[in-house]
Amino acid sequence: MHTVDLLIEKTMKTKNPSVIGLDPDIRKIPKCYLTDVRAKDPLEAVAEVIYRFNRDVIDTVFDLIPAVKPQMAFYEKYGSCGVAAFEKTVAYAKSKGLVVIEDAKRNDIGNTAAAYADGHLGTVAFLSGNYAKMFDADFLTVTPFLGSESLSPFLDVCRKQGKGIFILVKTSNTSAGEIQDAVTASGCTVSRSIAQYVSEQAETYVGKHGYSSIGAVVGATYPREAAVLRGLMPKSYFLVPGYGAQGGNADDILPCFHPDGLGAVVNSSRGILYTHMSDDERARCSRQEYLEGVRRATLQMREDIYRVLKKNCKKMIY
Amino acid sequence: MHTVDLLIEKTMKTKNPSVIGLDPDIRKIPKCYLTDVRAKDPLEAVAEVIYRFNRDVIDTVFDLIPAVKPQMAFYEKYGSCGVAAFEKTVAYAKSKGLVVIEDAKRNDIGNTAAAYADGHLGTVAFLSGNYAKMFDADFLTVTPFLGSESLSPFLDVCRKQGKGIFILVKTSNTSAGEIQDAVTASGCTVSRSIAQYVSEQAETYVGKHGYSSIGAVVGATYPREAAVLRGLMPKSYFLVPGYGAQGGNADDILPCFHPDGLGAVVNSSRGILYTHMSDDERARCSRQEYLEGVRRATLQMREDIYRVLKKNCKKMIY
Repeated sequence: MHTVDLLIEKTMKTKNPSVIGLDPDIRKIPKCYLTDVRAKDPLEAVAEVIYRFNRDVIDTVFDLIPAVKPQMAFYEKYGSCGVAAFEKTVAYAKSKGLVVIEDAKRNDIGNTAAAYADGHLGTVAFLSGNYAKMFDADFLTVTPFLGSESLSPFLDVCRKQGKGIFILVKTSNTSAGEIQDAVTASGCTVSRSIAQYVSEQAETYVGKHGYSSIGAVVGATYPREAAVLRGLMPKSYFLVPGYGAQGGNADDILPCFHPDGLGAVVNSSRGILYTHMSDDERARCSRQEYLEGVRRATLQMREDIYRVLKKNCKKMIY
Repeated sequence: MHTVDLLIEKTMKTKNPSVIGLDPDIRKIPKCYLTDVRAKDPLEAVAEVIYRFNRDVIDTVFDLIPAVKPQMAFYEKYGSCGVAAFEKTVAYAKSKGLVVIEDAKRNDIGNTAAAYADGHLGTVAFLSGNYAKMFDADFLTVTPFLGSESLSPFLDVCRKQGKGIFILVKTSNTSAGEIQDAVTASGCTVSRSIAQYVSEQAETYVGKHGYSSIGAVVGATYPREAAVLRGLMPKSYFLVPGYGAQGGNADDILPCFHPDGLGAVVNSSRGILYTHMSDDERARCSRQEYLEGVRRATLQMREDIYRVLKKNCKKMIY
């Protein structure tokens, strides 16, 4: 099965093309999660808080969303203990039927890129010669700075293992254009040049719903460019950051979608996890109050996006 | 102390501007390391082999080189167990007085980039509010694809913690130019535009030997471009990949150096760890035979590079 088909089916079932970024930050996690910690070791205590927090968030929203997007940086910053919490989070999200989009922006060449691809999406060899899955994410974000030969090891693993990647094409931040708007030898921008490569690769790897698991990251903050990129990569799924906290709204994400209401998933991290409550409220609330807030914010985001899609997508199929 | 000063002092002491890439690959590690493993769990067994192998290599060459460059991908592919082996490797290398250049090519924006910078170079907060160092690498490689605002969180941590980064400017691989040779709004290539940014940042953060800990990755395989980049970034240290296995030779790395014989460190991974023996030899050799080969290859690389520098660097100071 193509992993993009699973993402599409979950999107149709939940009537929701939005995903939640699991970015645990102990300075922002409600205080009630920081007490009652069993682990004595300070690193294991942080890892315990992160995993419990994620598990509660997943339990609260798994019926409303197709996927979660854990951002590796927030786990890796706590070293191997943090990475272990990441592994448990991925396994738990998958056990609840969620698609896992790992946001790690990995990039390198040759056998190094292959090592990342094997570890995050594929299988790795043990001393016995047996192979096993490691992180086992469904999708991984990948940075294309080293060119096409840095992407092909990831593409190989996707094809072999039925997995997907989102290649950074146009990111949501204000300095994105410094490199991404530069003009390549073929006369178009870096973003559009990568888009052409993504499209070629996507054409050879299409699932039963007509979309490819070779996708692109396209920020919500550049809607006009998103429309051009949508045209250049008709079969690729888009992962759309920049909604909410970074300034993109429901109208801005519209160009990322096809008339069937598919073709993109929109991410929100802070808006769902943190900013629906003030710092003060997060310092005082109970877990139940907090999780009710998470569910309300998730429903609100679904409603905002669904309303805009329903109104504008002429062939909306869900 | 600026971390670049430590790198320079170790380079002068060992008369060696070359570093060894610690890229453990169980398909290439000599067979003699794959036996006698204590751990029962297959993942912990791999981690044990990786750490023992690295420790032996470090013990064999620590008096000959200024630094090691562990490539995170080869550890991370084994999940949290692999990352634990990475942590132990970094600590062991530092205990032997080596500078640690972590090759992880991390990249992101805002608080996500800050999380990477804190974890790899800086300190992280525990639940108690206390801070502790995590990976504690001396240098980290960073990819600039998301523009200057993706680099500033790393620069902040470098300045606060006396650490360094090598920003990817011109990589050694054949498809490097697809993005890195594109022309930016300022009329120069992406590589040169990043070089200008690196240079500006480097100027504000210079150690006692006149070099900056804000460095650049410049491949050995593009010597003419390296000469231009050397001129654009006079105070930045260069990390030079592509020597040996990727085709660069001792003459090719010359443009990366200043007339004092400083300004760059040249990496070799496969040439030191693997290709000085055939697959067949690595399947049959003893640890002693293997490590003698590692030491010979390290001495050979030092001699090759030192000879070229001594001949061409008019103000060679070591």
